[in-house]
Amino acid sequence: MPDEPAVHALLAERWSPAAFDPLHEIDDEQVASLLEAARWAPSAGNSQPWSFLACRRRDAQHADVVGSLSRSSAGWAPDASLLVVNLCHRWVDGTEWDYSEFADYDLGQAVAHMTIEGVALGLASRQFRAFDLDALTRALDVPPHWAIRTVTAFGRAAADSATSRTPRTREDVRWGATDR
Amino acid sequence: MPDEPAVHALLAERWSPAAFDPLHEIDDEQVASLLEAARWAPSAGNSQPWSFLACRRRDAQHADVVGSLSRSSAGWAPDASLLVVNLCHRWVDGTEWDYSEFADYDLGQAVAHMTIEGVALGLASRQFRAFDLDALTRALDVPPHWAIRTVTAFGRAAADSATSRTPRTREDVRWGATDR
Repeated sequence: MPDEPAVHALLAERWSPAAFDPLHEIDDEQVASLLEAARWAPSAGNSQPWSFLACRRRDAQHADVVGSLSRSSAGWAPDASLLVVNLCHRWVDGTEWDYSEFADYDLGQAVAHMTIEGVALGLASRQFRAFDLDALTRALDVPPHWAIRTVTAFGRAAADSATSRTPRTREDVRWGATDR
Repeated sequence: MPDEPAVHALLAERWSPAAFDPLHEIDDEQVASLLEAARWAPSAGNSQPWSFLACRRRDAQHADVVGSLSRSSAGWAPDASLLVVNLCHRWVDGTEWDYSEFADYDLGQAVAHMTIEGVALGLASRQFRAFDLDALTRALDVPPHWAIRTVTAFGRAAADSATSRTPRTREDVRWGATDR
């Protein structure tokens, strides 16, 4: 194998920590920059089929998110300084609602832009789906044409999560193969 | 309105040109870096439910992609120095195939990482769905558990597309709103 190809530091340095520092606080300017990064992501026909609910520990809806966490995420997600609920357009039968088949794809792009802005701000992030979707949808009173897909935890990685960090692993690039 | 929040240059400078420079050539190292950036994107359970087919003008499958273009994309996409076909896992009934409900979302993330790496390399990009999906799926002999979602054109923006560039527009950020 040749050396791995070079990738820009903002992408190469992104990783998902197993634990966050519960003493870290995120400021208004950082939250605004994260949302702004997602805002300018591209989308099919500029449909922008995304919505985000950014909750800090003191925000009213933070308790709704924490209350919906599964056992696996309840152990670490409340320590993040920001929990962002990521929503996308949902198909609703029998309505004129302008749903795009790329709603999930575009939400993924917007979340990627947000997490990469996070790296630029010195924030680690971890996306997860380990929460009670129905309970969180009810608690946040999400309208029927929106669907919660994931939550992103942002914050400072806990010191021991960095030192005990397991290496990231990925499939190799196989040129020309579309099957596996 | 206050000033717009700061966003890292790699994200702020990304835009989708209307035309590419047909004289621009992309080198092997750049293609490798684009694929490497996508490779390290995060995904649900590290499922990596994506695949990419990178075609330069001289590559055999470039003709397949160009042959499938709609009238709207045929006018500009062949001028790009690279066309990347973006595929994700597809649900297949009655099989043991390991499909993730986040396949589209994760593909969107990986494509975002690839396009941001493109900005770092000085490459403009434009994603599109203006092609004959069935024809391209047949031409590339895509297995049934993979689905082509989009194509990304990478290259150098045509000089006149930069000067005649229309400003990017987005919805405003509305704090706390999940409805619109």
